[in-house]
This record gives sequence, C-alpha cells and structure tokens, in this order.
Amino acid sequence: MAELYFDDLTPGTVVDLGTTVVDRDEMVAFSARFDPQPFHLHEAEGERVFGGLAASGWFTASLWMRAYVDAVLSRAASLGSPGGDEIAWPAPVFAGDELHAEMEVLEARVSRSRPSMGLITLRGTLTRTGDGAVVYRSRFTGMFEVRPTAP
Amino acid sequence: MAELYFDDLTPGTVVDLGTTVVDRDEMVAFSARFDPQPFHLHEAEGERVFGGLAASGWFTASLWMRAYVDAVLSRAASLGSPGGDEIAWPAPVFAGDELHAEMEVLEARVSRSRPSMGLITLRGTLTRTGDGAVVYRSRFTGMFEVRPTAP
Repeated sequence: MAELYFDDLTPGTVVDLGTTVVDRDEMVAFSARFDPQPFHLHEAEGERVFGGLAASGWFTASLWMRAYVDAVLSRAASLGSPGGDEIAWPAPVFAGDELHAEMEVLEARVSRSRPSMGLITLRGTLTRTGDGAVVYRSRFTGMFEVRPTAP
Repeated sequence: MAELYFDDLTPGTVVDLGTTVVDRDEMVAFSARFDPQPFHLHEAEGERVFGGLAASGWFTASLWMRAYVDAVLSRAASLGSPGGDEIAWPAPVFAGDELHAEMEVLEARVSRSRPSMGLITLRGTLTRTGDGAVVYRSRFTGMFEVRPTAP
C-alpha cells in the first residue's frame, strides 16, 4: 500500500534524497555500454576535455533516479513520467565523487482528462559535496494517483 | 583523427542511427539498479500501469545515446553536452521492441566565448518499428570542435 499520493506532493516540498558515491568501475562499464566516447572511457582523453575521466551524463541522471526511487517513489503511488523540459550537466562528474541528491516539488495539478491522477513538476539536483558544484539539474513531470477517498 | 566537425553538422542534417532491439534481461537489470519501480521490474505491475513490463525511461534514453555514439560521435570531434530542454517518453517501451533511432540537427552556432567550439541543437528520436510509435524524443545541445584550418 502506497504511503505517498499526489495530494502529499505539494509545491515547495523539498526532499533530501541522500548521498551516493560514484564507483569508477560501474561508471566506466556504463560508458562502455551506453556512451563509449573516449573521454568517458580513457583517463588521458577525459583529462584533456574535462580535467579527468568523466561520467556519462546518462549515468549521472540514472544515479539521481535511483536516489529518487529509494527515498520517494518506493513509497509512492507513482504512474511514471511523460518527460521533462530541462536536463543539465553543468559540471563533469568524476570517479569517487560524493553526490548529494535532492528533489523539490515546483507545481502540482490534477489531470483534467483523468481526475484520479495528478501531475507534479519537480526539480532534481545532484550537488558534489566536495566543492558544492551542481553537476545535474532536471525539471520534469511525475504522474501520481490521487489519494483514494474512503468508501 | 575525427572526420566530423561542427562545420559538418549543419541544420537540416538528418542521420539514421539504425535500429536496436530491447533485450529483456538487460532492461530489467537496468531497472533493478537505477529505477526499481515495480512496473519496471514485475510483469503484473507493468501490465496494470503500462499494458506490459516497461523499460525505465533512462534505459531508453541510454539506448538512443549508444546509437548516436556509434553512428555519429565515434567519428566526431565531440566536446560533450551541457544538457537540453526536452526529454519525452510519449509511449512505453517493452522487451523485444525494435527501435529505430534518428538524429536531426536543428540549429548550429559558433560559441562566442570560445570560437574554436560550435554548439548544435539536435533532436533525438526513437520510433518503434512495429506500430510506428515515437517512444523517445529529446532536444539538447552538443558541443563540437570547429574544423581546424590548414596551417
């Protein structure tokens, strides 16, 4: 039984999603499979372009997603996401980085065509704890069930 | 030595990135690690919400990225991406789907602050060959080296 419904995700809600440390082997394995650009695979090329071997942005996005699922969606009546209108990688991510994940509810509205569903607009961020750099920022829509009324 | 520079990626350029088939085991392993929502892991829950066990949107995005690297970036003087302003999953992706990937150059401009670099705005899409449904659409910026002039 879900604890969190659309009704609970009110604008202004900020949720600390905890921290995650970037594992080098996993970061490179992800690059090898999904984003085999030289600066995501080889130290020297990463150094030349980004000042170090850098994670694929899709790996970074996926790390944020996992933190969001663990802290929020695993307890929520989620119905997926149609997408978003911002995805940004303002600074490179390196192996060993500790990243702090956060989510904030920006907007919320009940679906007109389907009143049992609500849509929230949320911001996701990952901040490197070492230097405070924001390394990932997203803005997208999450769909959630409206809390059922007692019979 | 790169073959493709900023100069080659002119607006209107459309590149066929080929097809990829969604492997069920890989799809579920990705969900288990990065997006362990029940409808991405369990058949019955996927059926209830999406009409079938559905891929994580980040897996779908990553499949597009791999096709883009193979067909374009592996031959290009790429300098990464700062992000984008659209990411959409208009329809769910299921195991066994054959997806056709494409990219289109929408805009191109040389960086004002760094004239050796150009920025292109591109659209990425994945279309399911079975029913023609667009299952992924993105719009983001790619950074590329401007072609060096002969000495």
